[in-house]
Amino acid sequence: MTPGGTLPGVLAVDSGGSGLRAVLAVRGEASGAPLASKEPVRTGPRGIDAGHLLEQLLPMVRQLMADSGVDGLASVAIGAAGLATLGEDLRAELPSALERELGVRRLALAADAVTAYTGALGQRPGAVIAAGTGMIAVGTDLKSWRRADGWGHLLGDCGGGAWIGRAGLEAAARAFDGRPGGSAGLLARAERMFGPVPGLPGRLYPRADRPAVLAAFAPEVATCAESDPVAAGILRAAARNMAESAAAVCPPSGEPHVALAGGLFKMGDPLLVPLRGELAVRLPHARQIPAAGDPLRGALGIAVDLANDELALPHDQQMLYVVTEKT
Amino acid sequence: MTPGGTLPGVLAVDSGGSGLRAVLAVRGEASGAPLASKEPVRTGPRGIDAGHLLEQLLPMVRQLMADSGVDGLASVAIGAAGLATLGEDLRAELPSALERELGVRRLALAADAVTAYTGALGQRPGAVIAAGTGMIAVGTDLKSWRRADGWGHLLGDCGGGAWIGRAGLEAAARAFDGRPGGSAGLLARAERMFGPVPGLPGRLYPRADRPAVLAAFAPEVATCAESDPVAAGILRAAARNMAESAAAVCPPSGEPHVALAGGLFKMGDPLLVPLRGELAVRLPHARQIPAAGDPLRGALGIAVDLANDELALPHDQQMLYVVTEKT
Repeated sequence: MTPGGTLPGVLAVDSGGSGLRAVLAVRGEASGAPLASKEPVRTGPRGIDAGHLLEQLLPMVRQLMADSGVDGLASVAIGAAGLATLGEDLRAELPSALERELGVRRLALAADAVTAYTGALGQRPGAVIAAGTGMIAVGTDLKSWRRADGWGHLLGDCGGGAWIGRAGLEAAARAFDGRPGGSAGLLARAERMFGPVPGLPGRLYPRADRPAVLAAFAPEVATCAESDPVAAGILRAAARNMAESAAAVCPPSGEPHVALAGGLFKMGDPLLVPLRGELAVRLPHARQIPAAGDPLRGALGIAVDLANDELALPHDQQMLYVVTEKT
Repeated sequence: MTPGGTLPGVLAVDSGGSGLRAVLAVRGEASGAPLASKEPVRTGPRGIDAGHLLEQLLPMVRQLMADSGVDGLASVAIGAAGLATLGEDLRAELPSALERELGVRRLALAADAVTAYTGALGQRPGAVIAAGTGMIAVGTDLKSWRRADGWGHLLGDCGGGAWIGRAGLEAAARAFDGRPGGSAGLLARAERMFGPVPGLPGRLYPRADRPAVLAAFAPEVATCAESDPVAAGILRAAARNMAESAAAVCPPSGEPHVALAGGLFKMGDPLLVPLRGELAVRLPHARQIPAAGDPLRGALGIAVDLANDELALPHDQQMLYVVTEKT
């Protein structure tokens, strides 16, 4: 708290494929429900468009501040999908714009993998597997960040939703053709979801959201897995790939924590049972714990720690970019 | 030959992703070099656009006929990529249009896999593996056609150029991350071809010709394979997948012939040695022979046999659609 009766807050933002969410915290506690926009921030020639982000964010922040009686922001943390490769404009524009518009002097820009990490594990060393349509593992020993996979559905994201769904549809096609590795159960489910399989290429390839179409089939693979050895094998391979990525980023000694983040893990035991087993084999020194919170909670933790001068996580232009101006 | 001193020919056409090629034959022999257009035939709401095909084909045919002194066509055979799923307009429009414009009364429309087959094996029973960017196997016992794979780069085409290149780039990404299954040699080649690997997703995903971009890396995998066990393993898996597809379509008894067609096999021994081995194991009763000719040669064979009432291959709306009008 600053003197003079003012009430400062901290702001946390999560910017991703489904839009922007923002939450304000006072004395370390969220002041209310997050506000959300439904429009994803545009990407332009300089990457994620800082102007478009501010256009959506500033009215939300003023609303949050008015609703909670907060009259200043001690810090802001923004988690953004694509920061590592598309963050140029954000790094260039946001520090001065947020100081000018809101008086903000402490700003953290974090990759979405980093907010997933801090949401799950806070400031402890370890590794987090973040999986939805895609899959990335991120880890830290508190000296530097490491990431593995996250290369997208053609080059990797091995074990993620699109990867599992794609493998399931390939098994359906194999069954249709009479090739080895086919599954009649997955073929039946593919036809129920997409219609006759010979028409599947014509329905998949023209779409812009092919990874999401593939990922939509992943829950069918999980449902099949109890009775279908091909489906069970796909999930075992997914678990092995995810554990390989976690092992590539987890500190090799000490007592790191490992957690899972993202919507893919809602499919439950068919994936979680083999994944727990693979992690126990590949990271025997790591403790598997449940994720404490989501990426917005992770951004909030970064904002609070930044406001309190307690941010111990490694800084890095691509993963966690921190601007502070001590005046 | 018809009476009255006229000289009839037969016409063969190959329509694919790189345009149209047409050749005229007189007395079973090509009358000269093929004519080619560089523009692929458009695909519209009713599939491959018959009007656009005719617009390109008719001037080429009139030129070929004038050059060779041919004054009538005893038959026409057209091999078209996509006939099976996108052939509706061709089947509806071409028979009447070609009769009206050129007096053609015997027409065969063949899937490109069928012209690859007949180019390689003629009218014998067997199986052909056709592989370039994609991969499909087609086989016949002369009673019906069978096909396996050919599902495109997300659902299959297992063992084709995009499949091999994709696997090679995944191995490069694994090496970059420090995950198992990585290859430092493939990483170095990927960086030489595409620049620093962290930028690869940004260069691949926005492109419309992603399968071709992936396939462009396949020769690098072949070059690496002699000294790199990961690259060699990718080619062994490609060979296994192709042999599985061939085995799914090849007649299970008798003395079928098996041949390879398409540009992928130019990579030579790194792929051919494991493929010959896999075929010997999976199809011990089949005789592996070199392909006699290319798909245009295959279309020409169909046209000649059709003109001579000797077409013994099975007819089928999607694979080999034949229209004859005996008046």
